[in-house]
Amino acid sequence: MTEFDTVAPPDPDFAVAARARQQRLTKPPGSLGRLEDLSVWASSCQGACPPRQFERARVVVFAGDHGVAAAGVSAFPPEVTAQMVANFDAGGAAINVLAEAAGATVRVVDMAVDSDELVAPSIGAHKVRRGSGNIAVEDALTDDEVVAALDAGRRIADEEVDAGADIFIVGDMGIGNTTPATTLIAALTNSEPVAVIGRGTGVDDAGWARKTAAIRDALFRSRGALSSPVALMRACGGADLAAMAGFCAQAAVRRTPVLLDGVVVTAAALVAEELAPGAKQWWQAGHRSTEPAHTQALARLELEPIVDLRMRLGEGTGAAVALSIVRAAVATLSSMATFDEAGITQAPEKQ
Amino acid sequence: MTEFDTVAPPDPDFAVAARARQQRLTKPPGSLGRLEDLSVWASSCQGACPPRQFERARVVVFAGDHGVAAAGVSAFPPEVTAQMVANFDAGGAAINVLAEAAGATVRVVDMAVDSDELVAPSIGAHKVRRGSGNIAVEDALTDDEVVAALDAGRRIADEEVDAGADIFIVGDMGIGNTTPATTLIAALTNSEPVAVIGRGTGVDDAGWARKTAAIRDALFRSRGALSSPVALMRACGGADLAAMAGFCAQAAVRRTPVLLDGVVVTAAALVAEELAPGAKQWWQAGHRSTEPAHTQALARLELEPIVDLRMRLGEGTGAAVALSIVRAAVATLSSMATFDEAGITQAPEKQ
Repeated sequence: MTEFDTVAPPDPDFAVAARARQQRLTKPPGSLGRLEDLSVWASSCQGACPPRQFERARVVVFAGDHGVAAAGVSAFPPEVTAQMVANFDAGGAAINVLAEAAGATVRVVDMAVDSDELVAPSIGAHKVRRGSGNIAVEDALTDDEVVAALDAGRRIADEEVDAGADIFIVGDMGIGNTTPATTLIAALTNSEPVAVIGRGTGVDDAGWARKTAAIRDALFRSRGALSSPVALMRACGGADLAAMAGFCAQAAVRRTPVLLDGVVVTAAALVAEELAPGAKQWWQAGHRSTEPAHTQALARLELEPIVDLRMRLGEGTGAAVALSIVRAAVATLSSMATFDEAGITQAPEKQ
Repeated sequence: MTEFDTVAPPDPDFAVAARARQQRLTKPPGSLGRLEDLSVWASSCQGACPPRQFERARVVVFAGDHGVAAAGVSAFPPEVTAQMVANFDAGGAAINVLAEAAGATVRVVDMAVDSDELVAPSIGAHKVRRGSGNIAVEDALTDDEVVAALDAGRRIADEEVDAGADIFIVGDMGIGNTTPATTLIAALTNSEPVAVIGRGTGVDDAGWARKTAAIRDALFRSRGALSSPVALMRACGGADLAAMAGFCAQAAVRRTPVLLDGVVVTAAALVAEELAPGAKQWWQAGHRSTEPAHTQALARLELEPIVDLRMRLGEGTGAAVALSIVRAAVATLSSMATFDEAGITQAPEKQ
């Protein structure tokens, strides 16, 4: 089933209390800039002022292959998806290192890797199929598969919240996955393909031309599917993308904040906001990637990235870097002295 | 004495080795963006590949009052400087909280606070005078005081490096200190005052006009001092700024990397680069503040800020946020698996 419960916004009363507390801390009002905004958001998400430091930050990486990779849209061969799932499991990937640096743990789920060999049974517990369809020439999924993948994402969010997760990072892994992600964003933002298509993991000029052709064909195939998120995921998405969308929507239903990562996760988030309107109030954009479509999707969601470090890896790595900054923001609001406590003269109130 | 030893650059051989190692890690080449650059810089500063995680990150906050505060250039009264020094000592300020979040410790030094009461004898061990002069109408310091302050900064850097510091954050505290900082930057970058003067801690329109008048007057007074860093610090600097300049120069002499903070620290860094050419290779710009002069100074130093979070507090807070990102960069290069180790297929070499 593809209905999500109504999303309630983060608690506005705690946002007011947090903003007021920021004004009493020993610094000029507003001088911590974005950190103040993030601390207020954390307070309102938690319903607590001062906010608690996040104790169980959880990265969930959704892995899947894409038939369109056969069209030569990526710099890497498809077998790398399964190899990287093993690398996540062994702890050797960038997201493992960056999550540990930021105080988060990593879970990887195989939604549609093109292999029958599972790295571990738990990783494949929610698998929908081996590889999503080649969206240049066929649907990515059947309707039933879309529903199964959305529901998998929802169940994974429930599992993690029930296990104590208090903030999420969503990540992606899949050779060729910026092709369906860019198609989804172009379709949902009515963008010209050439204006939004990037080089993904670093495809060369000829590969970029093949990717552009594939996305044009996929957009043409998807022209009747714009009215429904399920139809769009069927036509030009993928099982990994659908699961991310279900996950982002359900995290908001469960009142758990999310740091989005790059172009693939944000494409799924656009769909999630359609499935569960208001969900985006529970999200922050961790970073701005170098993919042009990412900037389009962030603008549509009205999310401002926390960092812009020219990253383009995916896996949740940009959001993991941002998590340290969210933690710093929470720490200021929870641990700084107030003017009264420190006996410091405040600036006079503006007339 | 105001001569600094010659600055040797970070080791280029280790930069080459670090760049080569980044290419072998399990991710597309270049996909970690700025993190790759920072990891290479850390390797070359340390002369080690992979780099070590920083074990003794040290924030040094230079505090001082400025006679120009009497001209009404700040939203806060001058007594706040001494009160904030006590707040740093008690651990309640933003820099205390953000340093702890990033794994750094804080030292505050009173260079020229306008008080005879020292928060602690060690904090005042390098004090040059009570308040620097009102640069709108008089020199900030005598030549002897400039030399004493530069030398204090040098000795503090030596003390900290000898005690094991392996990366520095430089911070500032002083009501009115963006006025001399902006004057220094305008003088050294030949900028129009109105193009670079910001609101500091949040001065109102009338205060901004007073600040602009003070900076115009200080620039006029300083017109003969441009040829010498010492003369410039005498005319329109301050003991805190001179100490920061000496510190930034000596840190580079001692081959110890520095994260610069906002407009005040970066003004001092401009002078430090004059005192010790090449020192800037040992520095990164932690953040971009909202002060227009900061962007001018960063451009002159050819430094690109790591984060841009609309912060304008000083104290080293922006650089402290950036330290987490530098740590993340080091972690990727030191802890990620290589393609060979993980048995992952690499992208073909470009033809």
